[in-house]
This record gives sequence, structure tokens and C-alpha cells, in this order.
Amino acid sequence: MKEKNCEELQREVERLKSLLDISLKFGSTLDLQEILNLIMEIAKKTLDAEASSIFQIDEEKRELFFVVATGEKGKEAKTIRIPWGKGIAGWVAEHGKPLLVPDVSKDPRFFQDVDKKTGFKTKSILAVPLIRKGKVIGVAEVINKKGGGEFTVEDTILFEAIAEQAAVAMENAKLYSQLENLFLSSIRAIVNAIEEKDEYTRGHTGRVTEYSLLIGKRLGLSNDEIKTLELSALLHDVGKIGIPDSILRKPGRLTDEEYAVIKSHPLRGVKILEPIENIKHILPGIKHHHERYDGKGYPDGLKGKKIPFYARIIAVADAFDAMTSDRPYRKGLPIEIARKEIEENRGTQFDPECADAFLRELDENPERIEEIIKRGRE
Amino acid sequence: MKEKNCEELQREVERLKSLLDISLKFGSTLDLQEILNLIMEIAKKTLDAEASSIFQIDEEKRELFFVVATGEKGKEAKTIRIPWGKGIAGWVAEHGKPLLVPDVSKDPRFFQDVDKKTGFKTKSILAVPLIRKGKVIGVAEVINKKGGGEFTVEDTILFEAIAEQAAVAMENAKLYSQLENLFLSSIRAIVNAIEEKDEYTRGHTGRVTEYSLLIGKRLGLSNDEIKTLELSALLHDVGKIGIPDSILRKPGRLTDEEYAVIKSHPLRGVKILEPIENIKHILPGIKHHHERYDGKGYPDGLKGKKIPFYARIIAVADAFDAMTSDRPYRKGLPIEIARKEIEENRGTQFDPECADAFLRELDENPERIEEIIKRGRE
Repeated sequence: MKEKNCEELQREVERLKSLLDISLKFGSTLDLQEILNLIMEIAKKTLDAEASSIFQIDEEKRELFFVVATGEKGKEAKTIRIPWGKGIAGWVAEHGKPLLVPDVSKDPRFFQDVDKKTGFKTKSILAVPLIRKGKVIGVAEVINKKGGGEFTVEDTILFEAIAEQAAVAMENAKLYSQLENLFLSSIRAIVNAIEEKDEYTRGHTGRVTEYSLLIGKRLGLSNDEIKTLELSALLHDVGKIGIPDSILRKPGRLTDEEYAVIKSHPLRGVKILEPIENIKHILPGIKHHHERYDGKGYPDGLKGKKIPFYARIIAVADAFDAMTSDRPYRKGLPIEIARKEIEENRGTQFDPECADAFLRELDENPERIEEIIKRGRE
Repeated sequence: MKEKNCEELQREVERLKSLLDISLKFGSTLDLQEILNLIMEIAKKTLDAEASSIFQIDEEKRELFFVVATGEKGKEAKTIRIPWGKGIAGWVAEHGKPLLVPDVSKDPRFFQDVDKKTGFKTKSILAVPLIRKGKVIGVAEVINKKGGGEFTVEDTILFEAIAEQAAVAMENAKLYSQLENLFLSSIRAIVNAIEEKDEYTRGHTGRVTEYSLLIGKRLGLSNDEIKTLELSALLHDVGKIGIPDSILRKPGRLTDEEYAVIKSHPLRGVKILEPIENIKHILPGIKHHHERYDGKGYPDGLKGKKIPFYARIIAVADAFDAMTSDRPYRKGLPIEIARKEIEENRGTQFDPECADAFLRELDENPERIEEIIKRGRE
């Protein structure tokens, strides 16, 4: 092995320090997109490149798509998808090996569409696979060595270590979101199965959840808030499990006592879920989804913005579904009538903001809501 | 800043490379304990220490406990817990700052109990906090510089970067296991609520799950297998949701048709859960928990080891609970009778291995099983 001179060592120290930098940055955030952006900014800087990017693999569509694209034309690049097996990235994804292309104009594998669409001029590329458990999950690239130099074998080794960090972050995020999906789908499946037994409620929770999410997105909720809203809506009627069928499905008029039992379901729901650790954040939405904005609801007669936010959203969704879904003894109301009801009761029964968000959705995307209602009538 | 000489640079390169090594090792495993062990072995080697350790904080008990303890006396050390605020580690946990102690005999903060109990002779300590989102979640230490030297400020900087990697791994694992708990507890709460309505089944699933886990642990299942078993057991009767109460709770003898409906519950369970992504691994346990080892069970009349493993475990647990739990029309059987039933039917109704595991548990830990049964009779 040849001895390295002092200058080379100094350079190596600098490079290795930038890797260290990545692990420190890791500490400050848990948002995957942010982590990946940070890592690729550091890669670009450390490897003296004009641009850097990460592609993820869409196995279903058999395409690569940009997760990160730094550099001048990054924004433009991010909209482009690369067909399976195409381009340098495609080759790396397929072969699971790094690829150093000093002059793309001489490499027939180079996929020219990205440059054409962005106006960027790619000269050289260093691409490495992102590998987890022996499987390629993406590709990382640095593009154009600054000052017209070439990427080296040493660059490749360093870039592979950087890519490893990105791959770990991506894999962790994926595992977490898979578990999240498993959780929500399981709750959804069980709640559906319970409702399935009963013509009254069949599909109710699913529809209320969909309406709630439409409202939540209109109101600009963050990803985390949307998740909380979804879980709250999925479980808003869970307290009905404890109510005897003889009351829940009574076709005729309820006695006062029976009605009181029905009205206990929000508190029953809280009682069922309360023992669960880490679920406290959804209890307010469940407890208060039958409050009214004017304070005439139950269980606590809360008024206005004192009603928890998620409960105000679910209240609108719940009422709309109650009106528009078919019942054994009557057809569901037409959308226009239900729409008018919500409009007329904004500020009395409903939080005006939540009602308005839903009305906007109804006016701008009527097909989507029609489709949800129709599904319930099948 | 003073220029570094070539030798210093060479050393720095070596150290930084060991950090790189950590990120590469990260790739090969996802088991937290393994990752932390790896990281601390690398720390020990890179920093030329005799031993290294990681402490985690037990907030409830206000203690620090070892998660990793490398070095000669590591095994002995791991059983020791350190009271809050005690020792070098306690100081670092409290102040959230690194601490370099060249000679512990001169530092009154040093907690001597560990050395006393292990026979290890601590001379110097370098300790750094593990911090996530501004909160101290643990402490990492390297102990005794080899050759009698002292840990340096440079060591501290490098060790902080290593600790950061450990902190990220710990935080990720914690978030994941919190979500897992939330998932399982939610399923448990909903299933409990469904069973609560019915004297027949009250608490059944909870007890079957506990018995199944006792068997699984006896059989030496891995952590992941235990999790799959738990979810399978929690959902083994989910198909009963779809069966009319008039049949499910009929006090007298069932007609052949009614019995056929009851027997459809394993397949109904599969139908409810099938649409869920990533849940395929628990379907076999649910579908086949009423098979018999001699092939006379349902739905498929599978025989012997052809019956999926989790299903064979749940079958024993299910039968034991059916015998020992009270029913509206009869008291539960005494443990000894139920024990004998299982013993006599090993190899016909039950997989002998699973039956034996449960019998061993019954013989060696009768109080635990009595307690589970008693809870159901309250």
C-alpha cells in the first residue's frame, strides 16, 4: 500500500468529517425528507459536485422517481419519472453496483430526457445503489465534478458510505409507516366487520372518516394532525360496541331511558380506549363529537372553540353521513338538501370553519363525495 | 489553528474511518441491542479503552441501567442499577454535558459500587450524554485508556459523534415499539369491548393470548415470533363478529345448521383481515386454530405438523380456556381436570410439543395460570 502524503491525508480528514456531520445532523430531525435533503446537500458539497439526487423505486409502476434533487434545476427535475432499466440510475438499480461515468455523452446508457426537460447539462455522474438487506431500494447520484475534474474511486467509497446513511433513514421510515398502515387498516377492518352486521350503520365509520379527512385537508392540517384525525374518526363510535342491540337497532321511537343509553356512547368510547398508552391525543375527538357549536350538545355542553378541534370536524362529517345514508326505514336525503342543512346550521350546530371547509369540498369536488355516498348504497 | 503533522492526520483518518464503519455496520442489522453492542465495541477499539458502556434512563424508578457493557467484567456490570444523580453517568445524565475524568479516585462523584461488585478497577472515564430532541435519553462511557494514557478533548468530540449514532438507533427503536404497543393495545381494547357484552366470552381472547404466549416462550420463540403469535391470538376469534348473537349466545343445543355457522368463524376471520397489507403472516394461525392434530378438526382437516405452528399453540390455549372458564350454565372445570384432558389428548387433539410446553408451564408456574383463570371469574 502506498504511503499517503500529508496533503492527501488532510483531504481525507475533511471528507470523513463531512460524514460525521451527517450523523450529527441526523440528530436534529426525524422527518425523512429533511434527513435525505441534508444528506444529499452534504454529499454535493463534500464530493465537489454541481448537483446530487436520490431516486426511489416504484415497483408497481416499474419506474424510478426523484426523492431528492439538489442543485440549480432540482425543482424541475423532481417531476420527472424514469422508466425501469433506463439511464445510469436505472442501470445501477438493476445491477446493484456503483457506476462512475466520467463523460455521459460517450455512454449509451445515459437517459437524456431529464436534461432536455430541465435545461441542465449533465457531464459526469457517480451513481451508487441504496441497499438494505441485500435489496436495492434506491439510487443516489452526484453530478458534474466542479472545476471540470473527474469523480474518483475514493469518491465512490465515500459516496457509498453516505448512501448507506440515506438507505438506513429510508428503511426506518418505511418500516414505521408500514406499521402505521397495519395499525389503521386493522382498526378499519374490525370496525367495518362490527358495522357490517347492521343495516343501520354499515359503512358509517368509513364514510365519516373519509369526510373528516377531506375537511382536515381543506383546513391545512399537517401530516401528523391528519393521522390523529383519521384515528379519532375511525374510533369515534367505538363506544357503541357496549350498547345492547335491542336499543341500538330499535326500529321505532326510543324511550327517554333508551335515548340516554345511546347518548352514553362517546363516554363509553373513552372508557374503552383510556387504558391504552399513547392514545390520549384522540380521546377529545371521541368524547366530544356530539357537542354542538352553540353549546346544546352532549356530553358536556361545550360551546364554540372550547369543543376540541377534531370533534368539531367529525361532528360535520357525522351529521352529513347521518343525513345522506340509507336507513332501513327511509332513503338517504339528496346531497343538496344535506348541503343546505349544513349551511343553515353553521354557527349553531356546526363550527362555521369546519362547515365551510366541507361546503367548499362539496362545491368543488362533488363527484368525490357522490362516490363515497354511492358506495354506501350498493 | 495549529497545523497538524502527518502522524496526527494519519491517526485522525483512522478514527474517522471507524465512525464510517459504524454507519456501514448499521446496514447489516436492525436489532437494537446488536447495533448498540457493535457501536460500543467500535468505540472501545477506536478510543483505545478497556471497556465501554451505555446506560439508559428508567424515569419511573429514577435509575440508570446498563444497556451495553463491553470489556472483561461487562457481564457482571449489566445486573447493576445506578441511582439517579449518582456517579459520573448520573452527573452526565443530569447535566446533559460530557465529562472527562482522568482519575476517578480524585473525583467525589465517582460511584464505587460497580467496581466493588464486579472487581473491575476503574481509573479514568470519558462519559457523554445521548441526546434526542434536547432530552437526555442515556449516557455512553469509555473506561480506562489503554497503556495508562488519558482520554483527550479530541476523544470527546469523536465519542460524541459515536454516541449520536447510538442515540438515533435507540430513539428509532423506541418510536417503533411505542407504535407496536399502541397497535396491540388498541386491538386488545376493542376485542375486550366486544367480548364484554357477552358472559360466554368475556375475557376469553385475553386469556387465550396469555396462555399462547406462555407456550410460545416455553418453545423458545424469538421476539418477532412472539409478536406474530400475540397478534394471531388476539384476533383468533375475530370472525365471530359476523355471527348473529342468536346463534353465538344460544343457551340450548345448537342445530346442525347453527353449528355449521359457528364453525365458519375461522374463515370469516380470514375474510375480515385478508384485505390488510402486511398481515398475511397471522392468517394461518387464525384460519386453523380449530384443526386437530389427528386431522379431525376444521376447516381443512389438516393433520400433524401440516397445521400451522401458531394455530397448534392457540388450539391448546383455546381448549384450556374453554374448559376452565365459567359459563352461564356451568362453572369452569378445576385446573387438574383440564390439565388431565390436555395430557390425555396430546397427539390426538393437540400437538404433543405444544401440549407438553403448556403442561410444563402448568406444573412449574401454577400460580400464574391460576391467577389468569381467577381474573376471569371476578
